[in-house]
Amino acid sequence: MGRITDELWNRIREKRDRYLGILEELLSFPSIAATGEGMDEAPDHVVEVLERVGLRSHLFTDHGGYPVVWGELREERHGTLLIYNHYDVQPPDPLEKWTSPPFKPSIRNGRIYARGACDNKGNLAARLCAIDLLMDVIGEVPLNVKFLIEGEEEIGSPHLSKFFQNHSEILGADACLWEMGGTSPSGRPLIYLGAKGILYLELVASEKRTDLHSSWGAIIRNPAFELIHLLSTMRDRKGRVLIEGFYDDVQMPDKDTLALLDELGDFESELKAIGGEDGLLSNKPSKDLLVDLTLMPCINLCGIVSGYIGQGSKTVLPGSASAKIDVRLVPRMRPEKVLELIQKHVERVSNGRIAVRPLDMGYPAARTHPREPFVELIARTASAAYGVKPLIYPSAAGSGPMYLITDFLKIPCVAAGIGDHLSNIHAPDESISLENYLRGILHIALLTINFVPFLRGGDTPYL
Amino acid sequence: MGRITDELWNRIREKRDRYLGILEELLSFPSIAATGEGMDEAPDHVVEVLERVGLRSHLFTDHGGYPVVWGELREERHGTLLIYNHYDVQPPDPLEKWTSPPFKPSIRNGRIYARGACDNKGNLAARLCAIDLLMDVIGEVPLNVKFLIEGEEEIGSPHLSKFFQNHSEILGADACLWEMGGTSPSGRPLIYLGAKGILYLELVASEKRTDLHSSWGAIIRNPAFELIHLLSTMRDRKGRVLIEGFYDDVQMPDKDTLALLDELGDFESELKAIGGEDGLLSNKPSKDLLVDLTLMPCINLCGIVSGYIGQGSKTVLPGSASAKIDVRLVPRMRPEKVLELIQKHVERVSNGRIAVRPLDMGYPAARTHPREPFVELIARTASAAYGVKPLIYPSAAGSGPMYLITDFLKIPCVAAGIGDHLSNIHAPDESISLENYLRGILHIALLTINFVPFLRGGDTPYL
Repeated sequence: MGRITDELWNRIREKRDRYLGILEELLSFPSIAATGEGMDEAPDHVVEVLERVGLRSHLFTDHGGYPVVWGELREERHGTLLIYNHYDVQPPDPLEKWTSPPFKPSIRNGRIYARGACDNKGNLAARLCAIDLLMDVIGEVPLNVKFLIEGEEEIGSPHLSKFFQNHSEILGADACLWEMGGTSPSGRPLIYLGAKGILYLELVASEKRTDLHSSWGAIIRNPAFELIHLLSTMRDRKGRVLIEGFYDDVQMPDKDTLALLDELGDFESELKAIGGEDGLLSNKPSKDLLVDLTLMPCINLCGIVSGYIGQGSKTVLPGSASAKIDVRLVPRMRPEKVLELIQKHVERVSNGRIAVRPLDMGYPAARTHPREPFVELIARTASAAYGVKPLIYPSAAGSGPMYLITDFLKIPCVAAGIGDHLSNIHAPDESISLENYLRGILHIALLTINFVPFLRGGDTPYL
Repeated sequence: MGRITDELWNRIREKRDRYLGILEELLSFPSIAATGEGMDEAPDHVVEVLERVGLRSHLFTDHGGYPVVWGELREERHGTLLIYNHYDVQPPDPLEKWTSPPFKPSIRNGRIYARGACDNKGNLAARLCAIDLLMDVIGEVPLNVKFLIEGEEEIGSPHLSKFFQNHSEILGADACLWEMGGTSPSGRPLIYLGAKGILYLELVASEKRTDLHSSWGAIIRNPAFELIHLLSTMRDRKGRVLIEGFYDDVQMPDKDTLALLDELGDFESELKAIGGEDGLLSNKPSKDLLVDLTLMPCINLCGIVSGYIGQGSKTVLPGSASAKIDVRLVPRMRPEKVLELIQKHVERVSNGRIAVRPLDMGYPAARTHPREPFVELIARTASAAYGVKPLIYPSAAGSGPMYLITDFLKIPCVAAGIGDHLSNIHAPDESISLENYLRGILHIALLTINFVPFLRGGDTPYL
């Protein structure tokens, strides 16, 4: 560890209670964009925390959706880092599977449990604390930092592009740090150079009648079976999408991108830890699984419901059935074109009897090239903060509206953060390790102080 | 109308309030066998009503399940009619689709709405009122009547065969009137000479992991898709079951049975009223649809659930998925053999990853032959009560443990009752028309007083 790294790390440990307090404050209120729960108060709570670490803040609402919280250190310095986060979280269902209440942070065995602990309030807190830390240790933050904290990421960021259009004048930056990231099961920091795009749809089969006694099922159509038939035509048993034209715009990865995958090494034990023994869709080699996970599009079934789902038995012929699916997109796939392909498929297979309802507008994928200098800066500071070389993924498996950074602002965008393989994001008992949280603060602080020297001359003097 | 028929009908109209009161009393308490709601008190409520019409009653519990309520007129007369009903009802879900609360009977436009109005408390009430009516008008009931009122019909009557074994000495009778029936949309009384058997199963796909972020869906197995694939291999799009050996024991109907279907006439407009425009599984001719509905086995999907089913979007890879299916059986199909066929199919298609859980034990189908004299008696008295010839179905499309009557007691068993095509049994806003209820009382009264003369000499003097 270098001298400055050392000093920062010691100070982080001294200020541990303050930094946990900031995290807990963010985790103590619901902010569920899907249902609206807590969304009236949430932006103000975020503003309070921003001001606590010395950022000037502003709420933007003119894009039409939930407010964007904007935080800035107005220092008029050379060099600007844009930091993207979101304060909205996924719904906590199924509630009964949480060990402690989702909006009452609980610390157990070195981890903090709450909805949003990892995705995305933990990441936001670590970055805010990094600012706090630098002000404390070196008395300044030696560049402009801009926090863009949106409130609709978990519902597909439907109004964010409008925000970018309305406020392009304040968005100027040299690079962007994206919202998410973490460490591998072996403790190596994970860095992501992109994110998939997404499309979220509901498929609804609805008959022109009420529920009926199930004996009518012998001759009257069952919308649940209709929906099942449709879904079985959309994906084969190994996960390959069967919709005509779906893969048309998918490009093969280039040399540099494939080289990243080679460096990731064997992925299998990690996958077994996550998916369970015998939990994989196919028995492909590890590298091919990585290609599927990070570089290929896919369709997932997030939920399905029809008829009687209570206790015991009820003999009923349901009147309707519905499913929620997400479609993950890779670069060059346009959401509106993919939607059209799916609509055409559903229309043909269901004879027009099943409706396709886009729940979010969706957005395309984004990538930053592995040879982009900012990637090297993130990697070098991660090595210093965690004491071990990072693993660099060409793209996250998940989605985010990163295309607004790479395609609209046209600056590099990289993700690094505080989660791990036990974080259960979007699921019950979401959590982060406190160690990762504190290391994350250190990483962002190191990234921040080395930003300007590195962009100027490729040097990282403060490590 | 004959003199006695006339006299009975007039008296029914005079005593309308008393008869509606008896019905409302039965409809005012929940008795949901599937969840247990109200089942502690329900048998006692039924006993109170039996005693109100002069029946001696007894609760049997030694078969192990919810009590069987037994009611009897001990008159030591020649000739015995056994009457089968059940006091348990289907769960009222989805509750929000009821216009008035399911266990608070509500009269609107000549109909009474409540869970169990038709299935089966309305039928029970009409039969009890018929006894009350005869005592009132002619001062006696000229035969032995035995009421067998069970509490587990809606969950597959799992303990009823034990009851029959334990108490065969009290069950002696010349014929049995089964629980259900009604009128056609054109007002003709419907008579059923049998019932299908049933098997009710839950299919459960469960992974050895929690819910995950849906981006893992690119390479990790989705139990909802696994279940969907399985279900799509169980039934084709026209409803034909694809499980090997499923139809092996199904026999072609005989001449007399097919002749009944010929007399039923065109079924199409009735079907459209029930299933909705374009609601049929296939475009077969009417008579073939009747064959499928009454004489063929089938598989129905009663419910399916997995993942996020709340409002808006949530991107999750579910950890489990489950479906409830019912299988309707026809004569000669044995439930335990069909269960084995399904288990084998599920094991093969899912590679042992989906579990089959029988929710009820199930029971076989039952039929009484069209040439059985009791059929003629029911039909003749129905003609007199409703003023129009009945429609006779070789079997109901629905199920009931009627095989205990036809195969264990070895006596004829026929169903006639008070429902209609608007009754919504097993569904929200279950109801019967008050007119049908009162006609039903008349029918059972006529059946009762003509029973002994007809069995003796084929005569029906009291019509």
